[in-house]
Amino acid sequence: MNITNKQRTLTPELLHNIDAYWRAANYLSVGQIYLHDNPLLKRPLELSDVKHMLLGHWGTTPGQNFIYAHLNRVIKQFDLDMIYVSGPGHGGPSVVANTYLEGSYSEIYPEISQDEAGLRKLCIQFSFPGGIPSHASPECPGSIHEGGELGYSLSHSFGAVFDNPDLIVACVVGDGEAETGPLATAWHSNKFLNPATDGAVLPILHLNGFKIANPTVLARIEPEELEQLFRGYGWTPYFVEGDDPELMHEAMAAALDLCIKQIKSAQRDARENGNLTRPRWPMIVLRSPKGWTGPKVVDGVPIEGTFHSHQVPLSDPKTHPGHLKLLEDWLRSYRPEELFEESGQLKPELAELAPQGERRMGANPHANGGKLLRDLKMPDYRDYAVNVPQPGIRGIGDTHELGRFIRDVVQLNTEQKNFRVFGPDETASNGLEAVFDVTSRQWDARMEENDEHLAPAGRVVEMLSEHQCEGWLEGYLLTGRHGLFNCYEAFIHIVDSMFNQHAKWLKVTNGLPWRHKIASLNYLLASHVWRQDHNGFTHQDPGFIDLVVNKKASVVRVYLPPDANCLLSVMDHCLRSRQYVNVVIAGKHPAPQWLTMEAAEKHCAEGIGIWDWASNEDGGDPDVVMACSGDVPTLETLAAVSILREHLPTLKIRVVNVVDLMKLQPDSEHPHGLSDPAFDALFTSDKPVIFAFHAYPSLIHQLTYRRNNHRNLHVRGYKEEGTITTPFDMTVLNELDRFHLAMDTIDRLPQTGEKGQALKRKLADKLVEHSQYIRKEGRDMPEIRDWKWSTP
Amino acid sequence: MNITNKQRTLTPELLHNIDAYWRAANYLSVGQIYLHDNPLLKRPLELSDVKHMLLGHWGTTPGQNFIYAHLNRVIKQFDLDMIYVSGPGHGGPSVVANTYLEGSYSEIYPEISQDEAGLRKLCIQFSFPGGIPSHASPECPGSIHEGGELGYSLSHSFGAVFDNPDLIVACVVGDGEAETGPLATAWHSNKFLNPATDGAVLPILHLNGFKIANPTVLARIEPEELEQLFRGYGWTPYFVEGDDPELMHEAMAAALDLCIKQIKSAQRDARENGNLTRPRWPMIVLRSPKGWTGPKVVDGVPIEGTFHSHQVPLSDPKTHPGHLKLLEDWLRSYRPEELFEESGQLKPELAELAPQGERRMGANPHANGGKLLRDLKMPDYRDYAVNVPQPGIRGIGDTHELGRFIRDVVQLNTEQKNFRVFGPDETASNGLEAVFDVTSRQWDARMEENDEHLAPAGRVVEMLSEHQCEGWLEGYLLTGRHGLFNCYEAFIHIVDSMFNQHAKWLKVTNGLPWRHKIASLNYLLASHVWRQDHNGFTHQDPGFIDLVVNKKASVVRVYLPPDANCLLSVMDHCLRSRQYVNVVIAGKHPAPQWLTMEAAEKHCAEGIGIWDWASNEDGGDPDVVMACSGDVPTLETLAAVSILREHLPTLKIRVVNVVDLMKLQPDSEHPHGLSDPAFDALFTSDKPVIFAFHAYPSLIHQLTYRRNNHRNLHVRGYKEEGTITTPFDMTVLNELDRFHLAMDTIDRLPQTGEKGQALKRKLADKLVEHSQYIRKEGRDMPEIRDWKWSTP
Ligand SMILES: Cc1ncc(C[n+]2csc(CCOP(=O)(O)OP(=O)(O)O)c2C)c(N)n1
Ligand SMILES: Cc1ncc(C[n+]2csc(CCOP(=O)(O)OP(=O)(O)O)c2C)c(N)n1
Ligand SMILES: [Mg+2]
Ligand SMILES: [Mg+2]
Repeated sequence: MNITNKQRTLTPELLHNIDAYWRAANYLSVGQIYLHDNPLLKRPLELSDVKHMLLGHWGTTPGQNFIYAHLNRVIKQFDLDMIYVSGPGHGGPSVVANTYLEGSYSEIYPEISQDEAGLRKLCIQFSFPGGIPSHASPECPGSIHEGGELGYSLSHSFGAVFDNPDLIVACVVGDGEAETGPLATAWHSNKFLNPATDGAVLPILHLNGFKIANPTVLARIEPEELEQLFRGYGWTPYFVEGDDPELMHEAMAAALDLCIKQIKSAQRDARENGNLTRPRWPMIVLRSPKGWTGPKVVDGVPIEGTFHSHQVPLSDPKTHPGHLKLLEDWLRSYRPEELFEESGQLKPELAELAPQGERRMGANPHANGGKLLRDLKMPDYRDYAVNVPQPGIRGIGDTHELGRFIRDVVQLNTEQKNFRVFGPDETASNGLEAVFDVTSRQWDARMEENDEHLAPAGRVVEMLSEHQCEGWLEGYLLTGRHGLFNCYEAFIHIVDSMFNQHAKWLKVTNGLPWRHKIASLNYLLASHVWRQDHNGFTHQDPGFIDLVVNKKASVVRVYLPPDANCLLSVMDHCLRSRQYVNVVIAGKHPAPQWLTMEAAEKHCAEGIGIWDWASNEDGGDPDVVMACSGDVPTLETLAAVSILREHLPTLKIRVVNVVDLMKLQPDSEHPHGLSDPAFDALFTSDKPVIFAFHAYPSLIHQLTYRRNNHRNLHVRGYKEEGTITTPFDMTVLNELDRFHLAMDTIDRLPQTGEKGQALKRKLADKLVEHSQYIRKEGRDMPEIRDWKWSTP
Repeated sequence: MNITNKQRTLTPELLHNIDAYWRAANYLSVGQIYLHDNPLLKRPLELSDVKHMLLGHWGTTPGQNFIYAHLNRVIKQFDLDMIYVSGPGHGGPSVVANTYLEGSYSEIYPEISQDEAGLRKLCIQFSFPGGIPSHASPECPGSIHEGGELGYSLSHSFGAVFDNPDLIVACVVGDGEAETGPLATAWHSNKFLNPATDGAVLPILHLNGFKIANPTVLARIEPEELEQLFRGYGWTPYFVEGDDPELMHEAMAAALDLCIKQIKSAQRDARENGNLTRPRWPMIVLRSPKGWTGPKVVDGVPIEGTFHSHQVPLSDPKTHPGHLKLLEDWLRSYRPEELFEESGQLKPELAELAPQGERRMGANPHANGGKLLRDLKMPDYRDYAVNVPQPGIRGIGDTHELGRFIRDVVQLNTEQKNFRVFGPDETASNGLEAVFDVTSRQWDARMEENDEHLAPAGRVVEMLSEHQCEGWLEGYLLTGRHGLFNCYEAFIHIVDSMFNQHAKWLKVTNGLPWRHKIASLNYLLASHVWRQDHNGFTHQDPGFIDLVVNKKASVVRVYLPPDANCLLSVMDHCLRSRQYVNVVIAGKHPAPQWLTMEAAEKHCAEGIGIWDWASNEDGGDPDVVMACSGDVPTLETLAAVSILREHLPTLKIRVVNVVDLMKLQPDSEHPHGLSDPAFDALFTSDKPVIFAFHAYPSLIHQLTYRRNNHRNLHVRGYKEEGTITTPFDMTVLNELDRFHLAMDTIDRLPQTGEKGQALKRKLADKLVEHSQYIRKEGRDMPEIRDWKWSTP
């Protein structure tokens, strides 16, 4: 529907004031981009008032200022609990200007005071060394979405309103941003929103027609197509189009009133009448010129309404004397003298347009989620212990055990409604099926007769989009809740860049005392590289953790529990933690269990340790250290140890298992890192170490290259081999299997002599036998399938 | 439009035969999943005929078989040049069965012959050790899209038809796949397709209602919404819906006829009448049951038409004796005796339904792109040389120089039409603006008056979706053309997983002699980490190459040219190369130039080398090696060298520059790797090495930990510090700047004595001065901005 009505939503006075408020925000935005001094233009603008380096994005800013001013009005009018997400976050000047105008900025940064001195600092600090970034960065109050990497605004917004029934997120989507894949599928989030128990997202597509140097797709399809597209996505679009401020204020106000009423009525209908049919939620399409109200033409080039307004329209007043005049005219066109007192304070009739207290979007606690964070109610994970009377008993699959624990975390927090599990259609396949005993997948699209575990509200959210899962969870965490993302290990790379951005957000907020700590982002990578024998090469990639360890050590944690009891202990720890990214890698297939719960607790608390029961070094002077990290490498290492101990009984072997990968780094590099003496105490300073690793071997070298004994470290791991085959053959193809590990050990221990060589020949034969057997039988040899840990 | 017409597109006989062909494909699909023997069911099925491990995905398969059979018909009828892209590539049994039935499979793999013995092998090899993967993997003829990681089918398809005016790609999109971000935005590719000069994509949305364990979003929105969505995306959808084979054959045939005619007419209209208004291209929505024709109910659980049919419906005949009977009934329901001769050959009346020769989708050369690959016509890159009378002269920005070269590559290949540049709206911003002198961005949506460098056909393709750029380029390369993807360095992580998949594809095809080599996938990462001082922390991430080096050494190459002449030489090499992924990192900002073209050529050919002109070791026995890799680290290193040489003139410094990062790896690990003696000759075996690196320092350690002198290697690089600031301050915050490098050197050279300490104090003061200056002035100190290389 095109909103062009003349029904006068605003009184002439209110319209006039909103326009003035908008001008004030625009004025401060231009000021931030350009001014080093003279912020109120009390004297003619001089070159020395202008910054040396002109940085920032003007194009998106006036539109966002326009939206913010109008949102303020409806917040006040309807007493809304609303936060603002700026999709094109490079409109930093806008969010900063608006939180400054409403007062929330100065409350957090008192030196940016609401007077002329504060205004001056406000202008200087923007995009200035020692100052603030040009995006809606963590430094900006009210922001949960920096918008540096485009594409996640809607996913974050939906994550924020899950289980926040009274919250509305006004989400500005850039029309360029809308071309990204993650954003294009995020419109479908409305099929996962329950009108009774969740809040609402009001998307405002900012159709300013351009991105950096191109028009946008959505601005250049036909109007009918645009409307069909959004109706097809399940929304009711309202179109606000034009460039005459007066008409646009009217239309925007009318559209917002309509949207808010429609949202409220859908929620009432669901909450009071139990009508849960999916509402066709309202949204706004704001078609206005890019760089609206800015310079029209500069040096003969049209600016307003073209992509040339994207960044700094008058980019070099130093060398273009005429530009200084244009800049001054531009600034004065907002008539600052009508907007600010002599003192620099916003005029009271304008100041009162902003909401009060926590209703201000810059002060809304949802945008500083740690403030609202409540601890999870946690069951005692020891209650889910697998009984391990002796090491090596067969388990049902570690994540299946974990599933029962997660099920009860879900259950215990049903009332608090602050825990959700996200996954791209794999929660059951990853072994967490037990959660469906107590909850369902939230599904607000049509249901059909034979559907299983679907319900209008549920603690599990699944869409076949890793981007959506990640974005939703991030939004959920950033607004003060807890969660878990379960995913195939290989495909978690799909969200590499989103992980990067979230880790960066955490790093920056760690330095902002006013930002309260939020719950950690927890990944469970269950269908991992070693058990993709049935899916093949495309599903085999353990490299996510290589990316993870590049981020700040204060933020990232990687865990490789070797069995179910360790997994339980690790996950308990992760779910209680704050302000981290925790990556947990665990298998879902039946696998041997090694530690009693008591031993597992201790092992996980230490993060790394010698497994005495598997070692025969007695006395602490081993010939070789067999180290392992990850469930499959642990299995293969122990199998190799049992071979070696049987055939070379005089060999003294130490088994070291690594749960917490960061233990390997020096303590100077990571807070979990072992000191060099502690490292040497485990790995010796001169004995061969055969290290069987879950992921790419180079990561172990990267973490340990400074260690004394690094030169004796021999690492096996995934080396991009394998395809469809048997589970054991995956390890053989990558030379991580028991036979190769045992042979590697012999190679490094000349003292094994002829006995060693004989064993090597035998193992080489075994490898041939294996290969022939699987090619014939299509499954692993019985001695592999039925292998059990035992010591001679 | 719902296709339910009774207009009898097919004669009854043809309908009957197509149905039989479909049954044959279904039969062979089930056979592949289950059978170890008895492929023609000449005797009753026994347990020993069934494989031990049952792997594969049945659910998607019958629908894809249905589509393939009908595509065969239209190919023959209209003599189409068509290839097939299987979005849900886990329907491997389908593409294998169909290429087998049409004969293309046996031509490539003669042992899988068209007789009973071949049939037996066909069944055994599937998802079997030593056999073939379960996806539309490279091993499968006709495939350019493995479909292991879902989401890229449409992007690949569009890439394939760019500049292939006579090609139609029939692209099956899974309804689950359609939920991914990349796929959701890929529907908009139709705005980048020129009906005159490009071919056509015929998307077939395979709306079988389910994914692994969930319904799909598109299957559960209202029919009106579904239609609106696709019309909004700019398509004309035809709906083929039902489960009665006879009616469905009729409807599918009618729909396909309609689509082909519509495609041809749009193309004619463009080509003959010059009408380039964007056609509303046709597409098909095929709503049919998942697991169609498979078991209806097993053990009381509905299978056909539910998600339970996704993988192997009868999963364990061993322990469920009743299942063996069900399996046999299922297989016999296709009446194999009507389909195959006694010998195992397909009956001739069915065999003739398949197209002939290269018209068969498994034999179409477009799907084995290397066959069609023509060399690029290359200008002589030396003609673009920057004149470097002495090292250190100021350049305009390396990628700007490169731009002129790329412009002429574009120009020279205008006629061949086999080179394109892809980018997410950054080709100009990355410094390649010169290309717009000779071509435009291809833009087939609406144009407006002030548009710049847009045209219905052009060699540059830009959409704000890194996924689309990558997917399009991959499709373009896989069908035998050349290209370049330019992207911000930080945001290339968005396609990490796509890079992974492409690298895996290349690795596998390297082992398939019948697959001809294709052009390399070339990345130009221009707006890199060190020059994101204006965009801030979110835009700073040099970690893509960490991911890249995890892939097979035979496939990946990383280049860090220090200046424009080196960049030209490197890019010339990359554009000529085959079967690699080349990552080139280069700056766009004005920067010093070091090497003449002659020297650059030599340096790049060697990949690494001593810069004698900057070193003062004369005689080959340096006190310290100052190594650098990347444009900014090279600048800072040389500045540090000039400081050291000025203040500590007796110090003997060797400068080593690394262009080809893989040189650092041992030659056992990478074909480019230096031997240990060669490495030692550059880096010494015992002198301190101060290494200034473009990316994360750990990567250098990872590549060099086996080297003799690794213990003396001290690496500086990006360590996740920095935000909006000055360019030089970015290096200071990460301690990669000249002052820190010089101080690091002194720290490692006690022989510098009191003079060294004095210099260190001076440099520490400089750092303070710098910090104060930029906070006041908002730009770098003149001595930094105006610094020029000179030697005492
Ligand atoms: C994923 C990603 N790719 C590329 C960029 C570089 N970039 C910054 S702004 C911009 C254009 C944004 O256009 P739009 O979303 O329409 O925002 P607006 O017009 O409001 O500035 C681009 C491509 C980015 N920030 N993120
Ligand atoms: C990006 C990605 N995420 C998850 C998976 C795991 N997966 C394999 S098949 C599948 C469901 C596919 O559903 P659909 O596209 O509808 O295919 P079909 O129903 O035809 O099998 C999923 C989620 C994957 N292959 N790729
Ligand atoms: Mg825009
Ligand atoms: Mg499906």
